Amino acid sequence: MKTQQTQTKIVNGVDVDQLFKTIDTIKENPEIAKFNFRASNKWIGGTANKTTVSEYYGACKTHMRSKPHVFIKDEPPVLLGKDQGANPVEYLLAGLAGCVTTSLVAHAAARGVKIDSIESTLEGDIDLHGLLQLDDTNPGYQGINISFKIESDASEETLQELIELAKKSSPVANTVSRPTPVNVRLEK
Amino acid sequence: MKTQQTQTKIVNGVDVDQLFKTIDTIKENPEIAKFNFRASNKWIGGTANKTTVSEYYGACKTHMRSKPHVFIKDEPPVLLGKDQGANPVEYLLAGLAGCVTTSLVAHAAARGVKIDSIESTLEGDIDLHGLLQLDDTNPGYQGINISFKIESDASEETLQELIELAKKSSPVANTVSRPTPVNVRLEK
Repeated sequence: MKTQQTQTKIVNGVDVDQLFKTIDTIKENPEIAKFNFRASNKWIGGTANKTTVSEYYGACKTHMRSKPHVFIKDEPPVLLGKDQGANPVEYLLAGLAGCVTTSLVAHAAARGVKIDSIESTLEGDIDLHGLLQLDDTNPGYQGINISFKIESDASEETLQELIELAKKSSPVANTVSRPTPVNVRLEK
Repeated sequence: MKTQQTQTKIVNGVDVDQLFKTIDTIKENPEIAKFNFRASNKWIGGTANKTTVSEYYGACKTHMRSKPHVFIKDEPPVLLGKDQGANPVEYLLAGLAGCVTTSLVAHAAARGVKIDSIESTLEGDIDLHGLLQLDDTNPGYQGINISFKIESDASEETLQELIELAKKSSPVANTVSRPTPVNVRLEK
């Protein structure tokens, strides 16, 4: 019995026992589910910025990362930068890619569906008329398309259900697809 | 005269001559403003993913980056990961921070407003009930708050106008604040 427990505990690299334990704990105390994510940003100059992620709040306390995660963002020369890093709209794609994939993997694990590999490509159109305020064009992505290539013994129907569930449950996908308020404030 | 041109050409690290030239070129040929940003993602295992950004389309052609920009995303242990990188919702904050800041800097440069420094903090709440599909809670950010600390000789009124303009023109801020379609597709 012990061998079987060890075999079934980890699915897709996700500790399913811990996942179900987390769900039970949240059902007992919904406060545990409340998270607050944070980042600080410093303008380097021109189109370059440095963002640092070092702490978050969740499960009723503030957690420090073992080390800060630091990102340099810049624009390519066509967009007046020096290509010192990916640009902000590409960071959004990176976040969306990871979020939908991890959501897919976790929901598959909870259902006992084994996934061998997932690759995806993302793309979206942006018209600079909006950024430059030349007219009333939406400055943001007009839409973002994600195409998945998944290796698994699961049926195509199951995989199709999983990508829809991943989109439905993903925090980044929902932040993008719903009208999420962005509030700016000037410190005095 | 030449000295004066050299002095006024770069504002806030932004080549203003090139910025206005770009605007004029777009007015002549709106096709130049159409960009398509791309990323590819590979699931590493568990909650970890690797995203690569290596090309984009814009100004009527495809551009390759001098080298690919690669990102590892993971979750902290509380969220079943190994903290190998920032998580996807933190990548979204990094993208938003960079985008609003660069938009602010560019619009300030176009108006001739010199900025000495910009620091910002971002935070947003997420309730895990949505991700775990325990009820119909929004899985995404409930809202994102950005607080700016700006050093500049410009008046507080001008800086307030600039942060509002930055939010209004930023591609990532608009992708978040508007209902932007996210489409998922399974390759066969």
